[in-house]
Amino acid sequence: MDIKEQVTRTGYEAKKAAGLLANVSTSVKNSVLLEMSEALVKGSDYIIGENARDLEYAKDKGLSDAMINRLILNEKAIKGMAEGLAEIAALPDPVGEITGMRRRPNGLLVGKKRIPLGVIGIIYESRPNVTADAAALCLKSGNAVILRGGSEAIHSNLAIARILKGVLKETDIPETAIQIIETTDREAVSEMLKLEDYIDLIIPRGGEGLIRAVVNMSRIPVLKHYKGVCHIFVDESADIEMAATISLNAKAQRPGVCNAMETLLVHRNIAESFLPVMAERFRKAGVRLKGCDRTRAILRDVEAATEADWYEEYLDLILSVRVVDSIEEAMAHIEKYGSLHTEAIITSDYNNSQRFLNEVNSSTVLVNASTRFSDGFELGLGAEMGISTTKLHAFGPMGLEELTTTKFIIYGNGQIRT
Amino acid sequence: MDIKEQVTRTGYEAKKAAGLLANVSTSVKNSVLLEMSEALVKGSDYIIGENARDLEYAKDKGLSDAMINRLILNEKAIKGMAEGLAEIAALPDPVGEITGMRRRPNGLLVGKKRIPLGVIGIIYESRPNVTADAAALCLKSGNAVILRGGSEAIHSNLAIARILKGVLKETDIPETAIQIIETTDREAVSEMLKLEDYIDLIIPRGGEGLIRAVVNMSRIPVLKHYKGVCHIFVDESADIEMAATISLNAKAQRPGVCNAMETLLVHRNIAESFLPVMAERFRKAGVRLKGCDRTRAILRDVEAATEADWYEEYLDLILSVRVVDSIEEAMAHIEKYGSLHTEAIITSDYNNSQRFLNEVNSSTVLVNASTRFSDGFELGLGAEMGISTTKLHAFGPMGLEELTTTKFIIYGNGQIRT
Repeated sequence: MDIKEQVTRTGYEAKKAAGLLANVSTSVKNSVLLEMSEALVKGSDYIIGENARDLEYAKDKGLSDAMINRLILNEKAIKGMAEGLAEIAALPDPVGEITGMRRRPNGLLVGKKRIPLGVIGIIYESRPNVTADAAALCLKSGNAVILRGGSEAIHSNLAIARILKGVLKETDIPETAIQIIETTDREAVSEMLKLEDYIDLIIPRGGEGLIRAVVNMSRIPVLKHYKGVCHIFVDESADIEMAATISLNAKAQRPGVCNAMETLLVHRNIAESFLPVMAERFRKAGVRLKGCDRTRAILRDVEAATEADWYEEYLDLILSVRVVDSIEEAMAHIEKYGSLHTEAIITSDYNNSQRFLNEVNSSTVLVNASTRFSDGFELGLGAEMGISTTKLHAFGPMGLEELTTTKFIIYGNGQIRT
Repeated sequence: MDIKEQVTRTGYEAKKAAGLLANVSTSVKNSVLLEMSEALVKGSDYIIGENARDLEYAKDKGLSDAMINRLILNEKAIKGMAEGLAEIAALPDPVGEITGMRRRPNGLLVGKKRIPLGVIGIIYESRPNVTADAAALCLKSGNAVILRGGSEAIHSNLAIARILKGVLKETDIPETAIQIIETTDREAVSEMLKLEDYIDLIIPRGGEGLIRAVVNMSRIPVLKHYKGVCHIFVDESADIEMAATISLNAKAQRPGVCNAMETLLVHRNIAESFLPVMAERFRKAGVRLKGCDRTRAILRDVEAATEADWYEEYLDLILSVRVVDSIEEAMAHIEKYGSLHTEAIITSDYNNSQRFLNEVNSSTVLVNASTRFSDGFELGLGAEMGISTTKLHAFGPMGLEELTTTKFIIYGNGQIRT
């Protein structure tokens, strides 16, 4: 079979499996997830062995230490994956809930029932733990999944997928409910993205380049965010200690993630007192600052930010800083340079807190808290399948419910339209 | 300005308008809609005059009577449009609702707030009333709209849009909240579909050809259905009188719409008694039948259905009929040939009613009622912006709420991640 045939076959099988999986009971899904969790731990040696092949290749290819670190699967990492599966088993099942059931004047009883999307395609880079995580979230939400990981982790991904599929073999759930594309040929991705009759949703997880390529090629709906250029606005009425603590946390606690702050906006009336305190904290944490002219008039050793800096997602210990005249100017900056991901205001002013919450239409907007809370677990979704900055279907962190949809169900007793 | 520049400018202005419109109060939006309703009635002579130009062109071009009928705007039709606007004014505003506000263990108060999508692009054919209807639904839900109607109705569409924009001129809502593409050049559509930075959603309304072309070109999410191949399954336990009444209504009450029945599936144990009753009703209503071999063994003068017939959306007084052995065979037929639009079962059997509701994953599934109820007004949404058979964001008839999304809003008091 050529690649097109192989991938099409995968889509066809996934759709068939999805039809069966949609009506599997919660208790069966949960027990399968717990068995998978155990199977991963039992299969540690096998996974670590396959992972070693990826690591060797990565070293040969001269990948950066950061990239190699993301690839490593040791016993601890595998235990973490296994625990993740057990946590997903413990979450409530979104499938089957019926909402808004109401009687119409003609006696029809009309409601909405939550159902799985069907087949979800995940296209991801680097971290092999996504294989287990995404497969488990799809299974729990009643969806068949087609996994397509990066070539750098292919052996690790295949090993994990084989273990999960091995568990399915012993159950009533078809093994094809979880499938992984075995070839690393890029043609497989472009073929996959044409299967709109078989795949209901594509979720790309990785760098902006991967995501843009997927969006441009896909005929299937895509949930994604390109990048997270997250802002904190320190209002003139902010508590300086709170503002400094939150800013440091948002930038430096884990700088390589999409909900880390990339630009700090400071009201001019608090800049003189706040910026030196903040700069000292950032200096100790090894954060390099880039500032506007007014920032540099206060912090003299800071380098100049260019226009390009305001658009930048550094994903690193670098921060751009701008002094603004007002909350309006701060919000206009966010509107112009932001990515609709996550923004926070630090303020003691009631009206400004409400204005910021109402007028900033990013997917997550916070008052007096770190941007790092923009995360499915932290916001109470129980799990996270990614973050969407596209407003359709899901906006912000996505949990199990975002992997489902609703259909109308209608009970009648002979009604016709007149 | 060339077309690309013009369309890009339209997108840019729409996005700017959307930012302002998102925070306009419900009472202002409602009073503007009522003024628009009055303005349409006052502008009847102007609209009818412009409509005459479209009709003349249509006759010159030799368009079919059915197509010309869809184009006609007389005083009654304009009054209908105006009443539609008043009805939209009377609907509840979905924007601003906050749901699921809960306190997290760390004290963060997390909820979801409903917000407009932003900018919606509507690409439609024929019926000029869509201009008023779509503009009003977008305005009510806080969205800016870019309208692109068909060339056959261009003068009518422009006349209606000018009247609506004339009302906006006298208000605080920017006139650019409603824009219409003035050129009929097709390049305008392909340029519009590239504006993913300005337009949040595309809704095509028209024939399958138009919709497929839009989906293939668009980089922006599209909500659509290609066609409605709707089924009714008459189970062996069906009440024959009810089954015949509902079947006739579903096929013949308005055959040219997407929720009309196209294929009737009949359980073999009821076929002998049901089919002759049904055929007689259909004969009187002028419905032409196409049947499978088993149907033709009972109804001898019925022509043979081909494999292609089971996929067909006739949109006409034609119906394909198939006798099946079981509910499983009926559901398998729907799965294979259906369009995920609307399906109904006629039954007196409790278990079969539940199986059909659970296992048929079309966007609307009914028991003992006509498929014609798959409609926003009929299902209680108050209005309808179209029907989606794509599972993402909205599945089934779409009302005002489907033109919105939610963002996370978070109240903190200094929380950081640890």
